[in-house]
Amino acid sequence: MSYHFSKTVSMAFPAAVEKVTAELTARGFGILTRIDVQQTLEAKLGVGFRPYLILGACNPPFAYRALQTEDKVGTMLPCNVIVQQRDGGTIEISAVDPVASMAAIDNAELAAVAGEVREMLRAVVDAV
Amino acid sequence: MSYHFSKTVSMAFPAAVEKVTAELTARGFGILTRIDVQQTLEAKLGVGFRPYLILGACNPPFAYRALQTEDKVGTMLPCNVIVQQRDGGTIEISAVDPVASMAAIDNAELAAVAGEVREMLRAVVDAV
Repeated sequence: MSYHFSKTVSMAFPAAVEKVTAELTARGFGILTRIDVQQTLEAKLGVGFRPYLILGACNPPFAYRALQTEDKVGTMLPCNVIVQQRDGGTIEISAVDPVASMAAIDNAELAAVAGEVREMLRAVVDAV
Repeated sequence: MSYHFSKTVSMAFPAAVEKVTAELTARGFGILTRIDVQQTLEAKLGVGFRPYLILGACNPPFAYRALQTEDKVGTMLPCNVIVQQRDGGTIEISAVDPVASMAAIDNAELAAVAGEVREMLRAVVDAV
């Protein structure tokens, strides 16, 4: 079972982040968190790493439904979309598949919500 | 399979957040993200929700090892610890079990890292 939807594109890193953000916004996702992995690893460990950003995306109505049916689902929210630099100047975009990440949660109602969010995130990646 | 380690404590919400933060710090975790779910749902949907905080915790050496063996593991990072208000004034703390959330990733080396992080997060919850 794959746990992500991914796509490699030829664009500059900031343009890819902008495009992902726009596609998320168009589908009702806000970006609640943003982790610059390259910067964090440099600051904390002094090691070099490729440009790698973790965007925490949240669609509030879906998050609310998830929280109402599964009170600890916040341990797996928000849904992450990552943008990373690849060799040759390409950029890879990956969105988590929430059905995969939440598979250990035994809750059919939550699984239905995760299934809907999965299709929205798949559409985001397809549209980039 | 449970997907979290949880504990209910009798303390004020801010004191619980402070205690969780201190226990995470003591085990090498920094808090990279912080989502106030109550505030977010109020702002985005106009609905009331109990105090509920999602802390994104990251132990840099472990995150680095995970990223080196599994390039898209950022879709499931950082590891969340949530703090939520319960009826009767108690507070429930829950840490994600990374072995559960990453179970869909077929990578034995990553599973080993997740297993180590799991024990650290379990110790955090036990210590609160």
